[in-house]
Amino acid sequence: MIKIGIFGATGYTGLELLKILQRHPAAHVAWLTSESSAGQAFGDVFTVSPAIGRLPLIASAEADLGSVDLVFCCLPHAVSLEWVAKARAAGPRVIDLSADYRLKDPAVYEKWYGHAHTQRELLAQAVYGLPELHRAAIKTADLVANPGCYPTSVILGLAPLAKAGWLRGVIIADSKSGISGAGRSLSLKTHFVEANENLSPYSIGRSHRHLPEMEQEIGNLVMGRLVDWGAGNLGVGPSHQPTNLPTYQSTNPPTYQLIFSPHLTPISRGMLSTIYVTLPEDVSEAQAREQYAQMYAGEPLVYLLKPGQAATMGHTTNTNCCAIGLTFVPATRTLIVTSSMDNLGKGASGQAVQNMNLMFGLAETTGLM
Amino acid sequence: MIKIGIFGATGYTGLELLKILQRHPAAHVAWLTSESSAGQAFGDVFTVSPAIGRLPLIASAEADLGSVDLVFCCLPHAVSLEWVAKARAAGPRVIDLSADYRLKDPAVYEKWYGHAHTQRELLAQAVYGLPELHRAAIKTADLVANPGCYPTSVILGLAPLAKAGWLRGVIIADSKSGISGAGRSLSLKTHFVEANENLSPYSIGRSHRHLPEMEQEIGNLVMGRLVDWGAGNLGVGPSHQPTNLPTYQSTNPPTYQLIFSPHLTPISRGMLSTIYVTLPEDVSEAQAREQYAQMYAGEPLVYLLKPGQAATMGHTTNTNCCAIGLTFVPATRTLIVTSSMDNLGKGASGQAVQNMNLMFGLAETTGLM
Amino acid sequence: MIKIGIFGATGYTGLELLKILQRHPAAHVAWLTSESSAGQAFGDVFTVSPAIGRLPLIASAEADLGSVDLVFCCLPHAVSLEWVAKARAAGPRVIDLSADYRLKDPAVYEKWYGHAHTQRELLAQAVYGLPELHRAAIKTADLVANPGCYPTSVILGLAPLAKAGWLRGVIIADSKSGISGAGRSLSLKTHFVEANENLSPYSIGRSHRHLPEMEQEIGNLVMGRLVDWGAGNLGVGPSHQPTNLPTYQSTNPPTYQLIFSPHLTPISRGMLSTIYVTLPEDVSEAQAREQYAQMYAGEPLVYLLKPGQAATMGHTTNTNCCAIGLTFVPATRTLIVTSSMDNLGKGASGQAVQNMNLMFGLAETTGLM
Amino acid sequence: MIKIGIFGATGYTGLELLKILQRHPAAHVAWLTSESSAGQAFGDVFTVSPAIGRLPLIASAEADLGSVDLVFCCLPHAVSLEWVAKARAAGPRVIDLSADYRLKDPAVYEKWYGHAHTQRELLAQAVYGLPELHRAAIKTADLVANPGCYPTSVILGLAPLAKAGWLRGVIIADSKSGISGAGRSLSLKTHFVEANENLSPYSIGRSHRHLPEMEQEIGNLVMGRLVDWGAGNLGVGPSHQPTNLPTYQSTNPPTYQLIFSPHLTPISRGMLSTIYVTLPEDVSEAQAREQYAQMYAGEPLVYLLKPGQAATMGHTTNTNCCAIGLTFVPATRTLIVTSSMDNLGKGASGQAVQNMNLMFGLAETTGLM
Repeated sequence: MIKIGIFGATGYTGLELLKILQRHPAAHVAWLTSESSAGQAFGDVFTVSPAIGRLPLIASAEADLGSVDLVFCCLPHAVSLEWVAKARAAGPRVIDLSADYRLKDPAVYEKWYGHAHTQRELLAQAVYGLPELHRAAIKTADLVANPGCYPTSVILGLAPLAKAGWLRGVIIADSKSGISGAGRSLSLKTHFVEANENLSPYSIGRSHRHLPEMEQEIGNLVMGRLVDWGAGNLGVGPSHQPTNLPTYQSTNPPTYQLIFSPHLTPISRGMLSTIYVTLPEDVSEAQAREQYAQMYAGEPLVYLLKPGQAATMGHTTNTNCCAIGLTFVPATRTLIVTSSMDNLGKGASGQAVQNMNLMFGLAETTGLM
Repeated sequence: MIKIGIFGATGYTGLELLKILQRHPAAHVAWLTSESSAGQAFGDVFTVSPAIGRLPLIASAEADLGSVDLVFCCLPHAVSLEWVAKARAAGPRVIDLSADYRLKDPAVYEKWYGHAHTQRELLAQAVYGLPELHRAAIKTADLVANPGCYPTSVILGLAPLAKAGWLRGVIIADSKSGISGAGRSLSLKTHFVEANENLSPYSIGRSHRHLPEMEQEIGNLVMGRLVDWGAGNLGVGPSHQPTNLPTYQSTNPPTYQLIFSPHLTPISRGMLSTIYVTLPEDVSEAQAREQYAQMYAGEPLVYLLKPGQAATMGHTTNTNCCAIGLTFVPATRTLIVTSSMDNLGKGASGQAVQNMNLMFGLAETTGLM
Repeated sequence: MIKIGIFGATGYTGLELLKILQRHPAAHVAWLTSESSAGQAFGDVFTVSPAIGRLPLIASAEADLGSVDLVFCCLPHAVSLEWVAKARAAGPRVIDLSADYRLKDPAVYEKWYGHAHTQRELLAQAVYGLPELHRAAIKTADLVANPGCYPTSVILGLAPLAKAGWLRGVIIADSKSGISGAGRSLSLKTHFVEANENLSPYSIGRSHRHLPEMEQEIGNLVMGRLVDWGAGNLGVGPSHQPTNLPTYQSTNPPTYQLIFSPHLTPISRGMLSTIYVTLPEDVSEAQAREQYAQMYAGEPLVYLLKPGQAATMGHTTNTNCCAIGLTFVPATRTLIVTSSMDNLGKGASGQAVQNMNLMFGLAETTGLM
Repeated sequence: MIKIGIFGATGYTGLELLKILQRHPAAHVAWLTSESSAGQAFGDVFTVSPAIGRLPLIASAEADLGSVDLVFCCLPHAVSLEWVAKARAAGPRVIDLSADYRLKDPAVYEKWYGHAHTQRELLAQAVYGLPELHRAAIKTADLVANPGCYPTSVILGLAPLAKAGWLRGVIIADSKSGISGAGRSLSLKTHFVEANENLSPYSIGRSHRHLPEMEQEIGNLVMGRLVDWGAGNLGVGPSHQPTNLPTYQSTNPPTYQLIFSPHLTPISRGMLSTIYVTLPEDVSEAQAREQYAQMYAGEPLVYLLKPGQAATMGHTTNTNCCAIGLTFVPATRTLIVTSSMDNLGKGASGQAVQNMNLMFGLAETTGLM
């Protein structure tokens, strides 16, 4: 059994994590922290069944860090920076669900998040926890930065094209997210009457914090820096050495540019990205489809829909999968990629458990099907 | 008082029309038809207040066509073809909410709708009922083809750029619609449990029937064929002569191409189009904004949001207005146009009443604010 | 034109009020107050069309009280107490949408709301603004206490039985409300992800603050104290003298007791009360129905559904009407009353405008159909 | 491994069953039938992940009945009658999710369902599959009639009082259901635009088909006919002999009467019953609570909420549990029981798997937590 602690368990990613871990055959949750609800039981904070509800909440400072094998950190960014470091110092491996260890270039992080990155050594060791790109590195990582929901959706939608070097010009990612992605903190835009029967674009263009995360990973693929693609499945490729790789230079973009437009939709959970890419003249629709098919053939949690099918949120709601559909428009050579996943599943907590399974030598989908 | 008949009153556009006309000071509804519910009262078909509910439903064949000044035709396309002709033959002016008289080129109609256009003479006389483009022609028209909801949303979002000749390359219109746009006929995709907590792209790319309608109107603007722009408000321009104009040649597109991707969203009514356009190098963000501001300055039912604001569905739900937001991305010269309206308001029945007001010399927004 | 000021315009009742008044032919809104948003425009607070959006918001202290004919007070209870008094002192008549002037017995108010009633003189003059019960008194009132949404729903559902003296034993009112009834203040229970796909009973039994309001009005009917029933319509009955009437003694209930169980439902607006009453042995179903039919025959905003029909929220959404259905169960002599209205329409702002129309001698439904 | 066949797999109960069985460690689904979709794959009918989606659908007539250990029958009532018999004749044990084998008295069945019960011998052998009441009998049953969703909700809410003999007078069960309970067949009342933002009572009073099912089970408890209560957990009580028991005489009801009012709510899945019972004078709130506590103390899938808590749908959505809250009103001696469960979980497919676990000697909650 993997002994587990969870920092910041009283948000939606914490709740979902607990639900998955509760039915995971190899997970034992040792403690849960919450600064605002310390002293209460988990069931005082969420309407959940007693099996989960009776778990006590403690302050992070009271957590016995050394007693667990793994810490999931579900704290907000900036707060996570420090607690991840404390946890690592005490021994356990860490999966951080915040943005604090995702951007390899601290300058990029500081620009987008507005404060200094105080843990640069740890950052250099962190592995970006998207198993479809970094499976080998995740297996041996002590610190995994679990990807953001939008980035997972868009990166998985573009990775096969990026790897093939087929990204050109302006790429539009028009994403639609369920409201749990906005978290459990109260705000007018997530107030029921404001969000219901409404649909709102926000931070559209190139202003959302998830954009640099997409650019980093897609850029690495395009520039051939990623060496362990498929290593876990296919048994090829040298071992991953993330710290020696040059970081992605977002100031020197190659032949393409990304526009990212998130929209809030009146749905509790789910995410759909509709991505518009112009294929190069010498790449046929069949070649593009084949590239996706090969890349995801061995992936247990990503699947490609049949020609003619677009992905809908319904394909993946309440699952830990990502579904991808491809529609080609010959007149303009536009490939429309529809990428669907549950923002709390493959987009957050499900992916975190997938990473845990890899880190601890378990079958990758244990507890996730 | 304008004496009014409504064909096919028991769909959502018919219901909305009745609600608007009920509070319209110059409208008197003389009869309502429904083939499937003839003999029942309107209130047997919808849960409405008695004021509307007691209105009787008759078969179309029993309607006294000659007794009214105006017929709204809310029948499905193909069925509308014939009933519009019958109504016109009997005297009253007609506003047709189907697609049957929107496409000026019968060959384009026949290609997209799969059956012959049997009323070519009438088609030649029909005016496309988008007041912001065809106000002068609508005033004197005997047959107005009320635009589709998606076309209204996208055309109003692109018209200022089209008129200025600033459309280039691939233009992406990613549209999200409430489910009333799919009508009241039963289908699995509009079954509550299938549609709720779901979001589905459909007919994406260049395969939706509303695409040629957008191309016709935008094409006319681009090619300078539209002569009465703003005539209603500004009192300039010669009288509109639609029958003499060459039809838009969709096989000879100019410098741009349109991609249109509709998405079904779990909302009863509302529509948002997120449109991505690359501005020409010599057009600044300020110039683009100014072009929108000038075009819509005198429009009573279209308004431009402040810089920094994106349009949301909430801006226009349960109104007859269209709200437009502009966001510019300097790095890629992308102008993101967000165009919001209620698909049953400005997207259908509200616009139909706006057309009625114009045709009968009333203030354009009578009953619509 | 009636010159109007609105205190506390930035809640949902204020928004709805403005929308109704905007299309009201005799209303002119002179000023709007908001303590939290003073200095902004209304459109900075809500996504509304420019016609409403450009109205400025001022602090209550800056409002020119003497310049208007009528003040609507949409402030929270307790806050309303004082501002209603200030407005009255300056001259204009007042319609208060809070609970502060609804309960005639200050002791009952103080028990349920937890603070002293500092305006007992004004309270004695206030008329409970349910036109179906107090039409004559409303016409001449200077201060109208607009009823709560739940009370309107339940009182209209029970009034005919109460007036006939047919209430016995335990009466169950199981009410379901849309979430706008909970207001615009942020709370976890109105956070989208918590409320969506959920349905929550709260304050069930005899613990909700709207209970004493129901008991007061139903009690007055039962005890025959109400003298102006229907006076507005029927032209009968002496003038209303509310201050001379003995207050309802909730400690001395007659032959019946009320249980009231509200439920929060994932709907923006709407209210349905399912009310269970045991009819006396000597009262037939037909007599009960006849009693409702007579009572509401002349009412413009209350209508009775046909036998076999239960009221649904859909009957009244976005209207200012109340729809009532009656279902009788012979085996137990249970009359199930289903009472539907829009909580923001007949349940709040629509009713407030109905009261305004009465107070200023206009047709009762002006602007409300 | 239990080899399993499913009749009628393409409804919502079939879909949910498959999802549960997919992660059940001892279940192997051998075949799925669908008359309307035979020849297609499951994934052609539902948007599901490939693991489930690739399963083929065959016609019932082609199913190899003898090759499986257990058949789940998810066919509509009346159709189920015959196919259950065919399956039993071929060998496998059967869990029927329709209403066809729930009512022990064929005359009652025929009255409510309008056609003859042609399988009386089988009916006599069928065990009502509510484990909390009939655990011992279920273990050895060859045919289990899986309870309806509303009956499960109301019976579990009333069972402790029934067993104690504390039911008196008129009992009101006001139930609210998610729309998946209405099935996947298309109808106007489950059309998205009609159901969304709406809430509809239907078949209220004593007219819904689930009423006799509640009366049968509650009646048996009241009249002491149930002998194996808790036997599964507690190891006490004689073996169950359902065929020898006198059937419940609904024409001779004891001291209480049940009113049942279902409401359709705009929620995909979930059920909440708010039940109003008048406690006898000599039964205190504490005694009532203790009775519930004892009854459900050993139950793995039913839990009692703390005093002061009402059950919400959110307590049980996407679980296989039932949550019960108790609120007492001293003034009227009313006990308000709030009973929550997921209509597809404990209300249908989850309970079916619970029954399967019991029938095949597995831990009762295998695959259900």
